[in-house]
Amino acid sequence: MRKKTRAVRIGDVTVGGGAPVVVQSMTNTDTRDPDTTLRQIAELRDAGCEVVRLAVPDAEAAEALKVICPAAKVPLVADIHYDYRLALAALDAGINGLRINPGNIGSKQKVREIVAAAKERGVPIRIGVNAGSLHKKVLEKYGLTPQALVESAKEHIYILEALNFNDIKVSLKASDVPLMIEAYRLISTQFDYPLHIGVTEAGTLRGGLVKSSVGLGILLAEGIGDTIRVSLTAHPRYEVWAAWEILKALKLRRRGVELISCPTCGRTAIDVISIAAEVEDKLQNITKPLKVAVMGCVVNGPGEAREADVGIAGGKGVGLVFRKGKPVRRVPEGQLVTALLEEIAKL
Amino acid sequence: MRKKTRAVRIGDVTVGGGAPVVVQSMTNTDTRDPDTTLRQIAELRDAGCEVVRLAVPDAEAAEALKVICPAAKVPLVADIHYDYRLALAALDAGINGLRINPGNIGSKQKVREIVAAAKERGVPIRIGVNAGSLHKKVLEKYGLTPQALVESAKEHIYILEALNFNDIKVSLKASDVPLMIEAYRLISTQFDYPLHIGVTEAGTLRGGLVKSSVGLGILLAEGIGDTIRVSLTAHPRYEVWAAWEILKALKLRRRGVELISCPTCGRTAIDVISIAAEVEDKLQNITKPLKVAVMGCVVNGPGEAREADVGIAGGKGVGLVFRKGKPVRRVPEGQLVTALLEEIAKL
Repeated sequence: MRKKTRAVRIGDVTVGGGAPVVVQSMTNTDTRDPDTTLRQIAELRDAGCEVVRLAVPDAEAAEALKVICPAAKVPLVADIHYDYRLALAALDAGINGLRINPGNIGSKQKVREIVAAAKERGVPIRIGVNAGSLHKKVLEKYGLTPQALVESAKEHIYILEALNFNDIKVSLKASDVPLMIEAYRLISTQFDYPLHIGVTEAGTLRGGLVKSSVGLGILLAEGIGDTIRVSLTAHPRYEVWAAWEILKALKLRRRGVELISCPTCGRTAIDVISIAAEVEDKLQNITKPLKVAVMGCVVNGPGEAREADVGIAGGKGVGLVFRKGKPVRRVPEGQLVTALLEEIAKL
Repeated sequence: MRKKTRAVRIGDVTVGGGAPVVVQSMTNTDTRDPDTTLRQIAELRDAGCEVVRLAVPDAEAAEALKVICPAAKVPLVADIHYDYRLALAALDAGINGLRINPGNIGSKQKVREIVAAAKERGVPIRIGVNAGSLHKKVLEKYGLTPQALVESAKEHIYILEALNFNDIKVSLKASDVPLMIEAYRLISTQFDYPLHIGVTEAGTLRGGLVKSSVGLGILLAEGIGDTIRVSLTAHPRYEVWAAWEILKALKLRRRGVELISCPTCGRTAIDVISIAAEVEDKLQNITKPLKVAVMGCVVNGPGEAREADVGIAGGKGVGLVFRKGKPVRRVPEGQLVTALLEEIAKL
């Protein structure tokens, strides 16, 4: 059961209010270089990214948004720290969302200007609290705790609410998974703003993948989280891929191939490891939902993978292609992958 | 809060009863080849595997256990299907645990013989139910549901309980993550036998890693699960590595390096992706718990990663080595990794 939140619109994408969980990522190109940045935005969109965030560290980057925003075919969010002029410039350029913490901007007048401009354009603001950059005051009072993250978010939320601005998303990221989980659980009992969830500074494609899957998986299974970003120290297309894998594992969204492959054991008759990797690789551009199995033995394989739309199982020299657990073709072992791809092409 | 379960002993390792969650994996060598199998067992143990399971598909494999069991320096479990003589032979050879489903063995007399031999040697039996191989009868009554998995386990449990055998572990695996989660939740309300949890046929090192992290993470966070196996279509040392990463993410166990590394963004001053991968690689053999950070910029890096025991942050040409957020050395960018390793050697 998903937790009920308000709906917020980022361009043509709805976040919260019962909408499907939205996949987002962030470019790691230099935003001041519109061509390179637009190429990466297109690449991320092709990988299934539904909202793309960009760092806007200076006026030149904000200026580049004038080229980037009209050309991008996916809603964009500007990530801005401290400088309210960058937020105004991003709004002028046609940005679809802002990530800025109103308590860090300076004067109330500056916040008022941003809020007025965002309201006029129907652009939501994400309040992004990070365990690594909490104010000293909050840390002294609460320590590095879920409360500290929530209290920090509240400060920013109240500033916007005082200006009658409720087009808000909130994130409370930490690299510490239990801390991040507890913080989101806590804030979800206190507000109904949609939540952007993520584990920050999670690590590499391997270690970070586990941390993000554990942290986001737990929250999503409890119905918490309206949009997710997997942060990896890797090319952002892997973040998009990982986000989809998490959502698919929990059956919250469907997209592309779900690969079922047996762990190899003493009974395995083919090189499942390299065949599964090859199949995963060759099917990575399919976006239609499809369950594909790669099983080590013809005896148990087809039965154990009967939920798969299509699959292969290895034998001694001769393998099997099957659909929904029923054999459809016997082929020499060396042609198993080709035969599988042919079978998929038919579907 | 961990769910209370009975304690079961596999050799000198306790599973359940409040013991730390045990990491296990399975060899993918030919058990009939004791030398190769013993080498892989040693490799898995070095990677942090606390219980190793082996397939025992025939009499020759059972015979090889006579060589393997006395030589292995980690408790071993024999995975046996149908043939009770293999179970008896494994017990004779000194195996520390059995995985066999008593309802599939045949006559009651055969079950009685296994139970008597296991009892005599203090060897526990794991009942391993798998969504892919449920009996037709159960599937017809319950469909492919959590109830079907639990009912199937119950049949086997009752057979052992009727013989006054309670040295039981139970697993209810499925490749479908929500199905597997619900099945474990359900059985944990009905029995207090320790649970061996896992997502089966999870997939490759990437896709399977996400599924296992999500499925096991959710259950462990609820206090369910006394021993875990991550099933990957990959070398089993990756299963051990992944199991530890999951336990570390939830702070259930500590071992080796926890790497914190920022996602690269427009503000990044060094090649964080390759540096983080290099650091992860070079530190993989450390078993002492250590938090290491690789951050993209000297301005925010040390502060955001102040929880790290030691870290590096990139600057333009010159980087920083820091401990607990405090700078200790400035070094040219090309020497950052070396300087980090030196700093770690000092700890």
